This record gives sequence, structure tokens and C-alpha cells, in this order.
Amino acid sequence: MAEYGHGGDIYSQEVELDYSANINPLGMPEGVKSALRSAADLAAPYPDSACRRLTEALAGTYGVKRDQIICGNGAADLIFQLVYGRKPGKALLIAPSFSEYEQALRAWGTQVEYCMLREEEGFAFSLEDWKRKAEEFQPDLAFFCNPNNPTGLAVKKETVREMAEFCRERGIFLAVDECFGEFLDEPETCSVLDELEQFPNVFVLKAFTKLYAMAGVRLGYGFCADRQVLESMEAVRQPWSVSIPAQEAGIAALKETAYVERTKKLVAEQRAALKKGLEQLGFSVWNSQANYLFFRGPEKLKEELLKRKILIRSCANYPGLDGRYYRICVRTAGENEIFLEELEKTVKSGWPNGPEDDILSGNQTD
Amino acid sequence: MAEYGHGGDIYSQEVELDYSANINPLGMPEGVKSALRSAADLAAPYPDSACRRLTEALAGTYGVKRDQIICGNGAADLIFQLVYGRKPGKALLIAPSFSEYEQALRAWGTQVEYCMLREEEGFAFSLEDWKRKAEEFQPDLAFFCNPNNPTGLAVKKETVREMAEFCRERGIFLAVDECFGEFLDEPETCSVLDELEQFPNVFVLKAFTKLYAMAGVRLGYGFCADRQVLESMEAVRQPWSVSIPAQEAGIAALKETAYVERTKKLVAEQRAALKKGLEQLGFSVWNSQANYLFFRGPEKLKEELLKRKILIRSCANYPGLDGRYYRICVRTAGENEIFLEELEKTVKSGWPNGPEDDILSGNQTD
Repeated sequence: MAEYGHGGDIYSQEVELDYSANINPLGMPEGVKSALRSAADLAAPYPDSACRRLTEALAGTYGVKRDQIICGNGAADLIFQLVYGRKPGKALLIAPSFSEYEQALRAWGTQVEYCMLREEEGFAFSLEDWKRKAEEFQPDLAFFCNPNNPTGLAVKKETVREMAEFCRERGIFLAVDECFGEFLDEPETCSVLDELEQFPNVFVLKAFTKLYAMAGVRLGYGFCADRQVLESMEAVRQPWSVSIPAQEAGIAALKETAYVERTKKLVAEQRAALKKGLEQLGFSVWNSQANYLFFRGPEKLKEELLKRKILIRSCANYPGLDGRYYRICVRTAGENEIFLEELEKTVKSGWPNGPEDDILSGNQTD
Repeated sequence: MAEYGHGGDIYSQEVELDYSANINPLGMPEGVKSALRSAADLAAPYPDSACRRLTEALAGTYGVKRDQIICGNGAADLIFQLVYGRKPGKALLIAPSFSEYEQALRAWGTQVEYCMLREEEGFAFSLEDWKRKAEEFQPDLAFFCNPNNPTGLAVKKETVREMAEFCRERGIFLAVDECFGEFLDEPETCSVLDELEQFPNVFVLKAFTKLYAMAGVRLGYGFCADRQVLESMEAVRQPWSVSIPAQEAGIAALKETAYVERTKKLVAEQRAALKKGLEQLGFSVWNSQANYLFFRGPEKLKEELLKRKILIRSCANYPGLDGRYYRICVRTAGENEIFLEELEKTVKSGWPNGPEDDILSGNQTD
């Protein structure tokens, strides 16, 4: 079995509180559940290969043309299709960032280069650095995650627009991953979706998975003004990649506007509470704007918490990070209280090289 | 939108009787439906990337080791993964056969060669021809569909074993598609699954889609004794390709042994009845052993039947065939009676170049 390097592995270990996968803490909306149950009676035939009803609903929601939309078996599926469809020789990534870009690029045989986000700059994205790197490396394709995963830091749309212009002038295709965009306080200030028409060299990726707590259903979608880009993606995949349950769940999810508002409110409040709690324990926590928090703590914290059946995401396998970095999702008030209590017990249990010794000093422990 | 060249498109046209997709006419078993409904409450987290419970159930059913099994988002998904994982320079196909092999190979950039099945030989597979072609072309990969789609003709396992031996000696990887194998009267006489260990160069593909009428759920699986082959497939896809509803449905489906027996009985009976009906109308029908029938009739028959809201599969887009060839699935007695009645009305409606003029003569009409 290939090693599993993501969050959300609640299958190979005993987990009561999963803080490792960035899924909406409100759980799947009842409307989506109901659509999934009804889909059982619809799922004998092959699915609609073109996802007509779902793309129509998405077109209405986002004010985008239907033929500028593609749906996939989760956002990760679309990342692979974009890479296989574009067949890039060289690709530029930021690091640390979501690892599936690189997984897909390596599968294709693409040469990968990183624009490193540095801790001394608060892991902030530097447009200047990125442009310099792109000028040097001359990639065919660049991935940019906004807000970034695992840091939760978002850049404004003006910055992404400048990247898109820079890329358009140089024949670089830019994939902007906005999968966590809907969790931001003001998504519209960071999304470039409303500028799609001006940038046929841009693909915007989004997901139902996280926002509607339906990761197990698998449903992602993407936008591009260049129809040929979407057709190149369709050419490298099976015709029926989006299941009938997923199509039905997606159509139902788009009606859940009140749920989305409740989610944003909850995430904003609880993110602040969790951050405060982590800082009180002496951890360095970055200013995530998404539904997860990125922090630096003692090594082996994941293993220690797992003894208490709490799973967090170790960021040791991200390029540019090591075993001291972690990501946790934001959950409900009650869950977060338990989490912080258990975390405090863990930290104060006197386990070797506790936080006072090595977190605050900032030195890497062995 | 890329052109859709398969059966089962009930979404872009009005269809009351779908004879174009080869799905179990008994419909989805109640146990599978029930599992799908229950899955709505389980589908918030990410799916188990390794499909542990499902592969365990498959291992028990087939008497195969768990780590020799891979699951995918439909069998078609696994075809693409096999191609992307193996990265073949040259591949040998039989023609006519299922078109997704070629779709996946073209997406990778593989050079494709056909071993043609000829009408004058009843579209029968010739091992001698195939070996000659393979010697000449020296492929890295060969696909073989047994029973073949669209003809429904199956070869015995001894023949496939000889192909596997031939391939093993020459470093050719052989993918045997047994997706319709369970519909055969005696599946075990045609399947090479029980010889897996002797042929690490063989991948056996199967699907839940057709047998359990759950095409909309998307679930396929495959077997290979060479663990590295399966790992190469995992490396070229997202970690979560099989949804939670699909995993749950698959586990439930494997318990439906009585349903499978009823299916085989129904298909055998109704296939004979349908074949007789088609022959009485003057069509040439081949001896399919699967849950579908392949026949030669007048051109434009698909379009004529669609006026009666009946959809059949035109085989005009298969290499080696043209607009006179069709495939229909075997459905229930009542449906097949209606189908044959409507077909008779269509044929006798005096539409231009009716069957008496061109089918029996064997000449291609314009």
C-alpha cells in the first residue's frame, strides 16, 4: 500500500476526535443527506457524463457560463486531470502547500520547482519572489492555493490577478485552488472567479467536499474560460467520473445558503478561540483565515494526542516543514474545548522535551 | 463538450426503454439500495483511501489476497490508471472492443495497433492472428475483453492462459477485462482469476456497475499478483477515488448471491428470446454469451427507434464496424416483448431501405 500522507485517516487507527481533515464542523446539511438517500433509487443507470443539472446549478450560483464548468470526483481528481490534460514539462509550486499538485505532476513526469514560503516571513506569499522564480524557471503551469493549505493564509484577488496577468503574458497556465475560499470571512475579496473571462489561462478549482461536509461523496468542480482546457481534461478521464449520488448531493448543497452563513460565523468565532488556546499553551500559531489552523509545537505531538484518540495533521511531509509543524481544523465550541483540555493535559504531562524546552526556543528537537 | 460515444445516454434525449447500456435488468438489489441510503450518514469524512473493508470482502469472495486487489471509481477509472501507471509506448487491442482502452492509451500518447476480428470469421478471436500481430508489433501492453464488448463472444480460460504465457515470455503486460464475466452461464470456464499467482504480468478487471445495476454509483475493481503494478496505479491517481457510498454499496452487493443466480437464469432465457425475435425480423445476430446482443441491421435503426423512445447502441464508432451494427442489452421478458413489437413496427413501417433490401443482402447502404 502506498503511504497515506494526508489528514482524515480515521480507518487505520482509533480516533474519537478528528482534527486532521478540514471538514465543516456542522456536519452534512440535512438537505444533502436527503438527496443522497433519494439517489439510491436513481443510481442504476450510468451517470450523466456532462453533469448537466449540476453544472446548470453551479452556473446559476456563480454567474458563470455552463460550458466554463467542469465537475470531478473530488477536487483532487480535477488536479490530476488538469495536469494530464495540459501535459506540462515544468511546473512551479509554492511550498508548503497541498501535496496533490506535486503528486499529479510527478505522475505525469513534470519537472517541479518550488517558490518557498519562509517562516521568517510568516509563511506569507511574496509576489516578487514568485515572479522572480517564474522568470528563472519558465514553467508551463503554476499551482497557487488561496487560502493556502496548510497555513490558512489568503492573498487578495488583486495579487492573484497580477499573477494571472504575468502568466498570460508568458504563456504560463495558472491553476488557482480556491477549495477553502468559501470559509473566508470575505470570499469575494480573494476569489478571481469573477475575472474568468479576462484570463483564459486560469483555472479556478473549488470543492463541495469541505464546505458541505461531504468528503466521502467526492465532488469537486472547476472553472475556465478556455473551453479547450476543459475538453483536454475530459479527454484524459473516463466519461463517468462523477457519480449520481455526488451529482444529486451537489445540486442539493447549492441550496444550503443559510448553512454556509452559519458555517462562516462558527468558523470565525471558533478559529479565534482555538488560536488563543494554542497560544496560551506556548505554541506559535499563524493567522489562518480558513477553517483550519497552522501552528508550531513540540515534535511527536500527533503521536501523543493519538493516545487520547485525537488525530491532528502532522505537516512533517510538506516540503519546507518538519516534525514541529501541525495543522488542525476548526470544530464546534464543545469539541474545541475538549480538544484544548486534552492538549493541555498532553503538554503538561511532562512528556520528554515538553513545550517549554523546545517550542519557545524555536530549535528543532531531535 | 466532448462527443459522447457510449450507450446509456438517457440525459440528452427522451428515452423510455434504454437498451443501450448493459445493466442488470433486475435493477439494483434492495440490499445495495439500503446500504446506499445508510451511507448518507457516513459520508462526511474522507473515504478510506485503501478501501479496507471492501477489499477484505472481495478477497473473501474470490479467494484472493487483499493486497492483490485495487478498487476504482468504476472499471473505466481503473483502465486509465493502468495505462498511466504502466506508461506503455505501444499497445495492442482487439477490434471491435470496448473503446475506453483506446481513449486511455491515446490520452497517454501510446501507439495503438489492432488485431481485427473479422465478420467473415464470425468476429471470433483468433489466437494465431493475435500472436502474429503481437510478434510483429511488440507491444508493452495488451487489452483483452472477455466476453468481448460489443460482440458478447467469450473465449475459454485456456486461450487466455496461452495469451498470458505468450505475454509473460515477451515482457508484455496483459489486461484482461472480465467486467461482463459474471453474466456468462459458466463464468469459471472463462476467467483466469484463479491463475493470478502464475501470471504477475496479468491484470484482471471486474465491475460492480453492470452486475448489480449500480452504474451510477461507480465501482470497479481489479486483481494483480504483482503488487508493484497496483502501486503504480495508486501513484497516478488521487488518494480518495472510491466514494463512501460506493464502498458501502460494494460490500452489500457481495452478499447478493441469490440475486446473481436469478440474473444469470433471466439473462440466459431472455437472451435466447431476444435473439430469436431479432432473427425473425431478418437481422444477423451473433452468439453472445453475455447480457447483451450484437447484431447487423439496417442503417439509421437507432434514430428510428428513438422516435419510439427506445435507445439502442449504434456500433458505428467502433473500429472495424459501421452504421449497420448495433448492440442491445437483455432486459426482462415484458420489456423485451415491447421492444420486439416496437422493433417490428419500425422495420415494417416501410422506412427507406427497409431490411429486405439491405440487411439480408449484406451490402452496406449509403
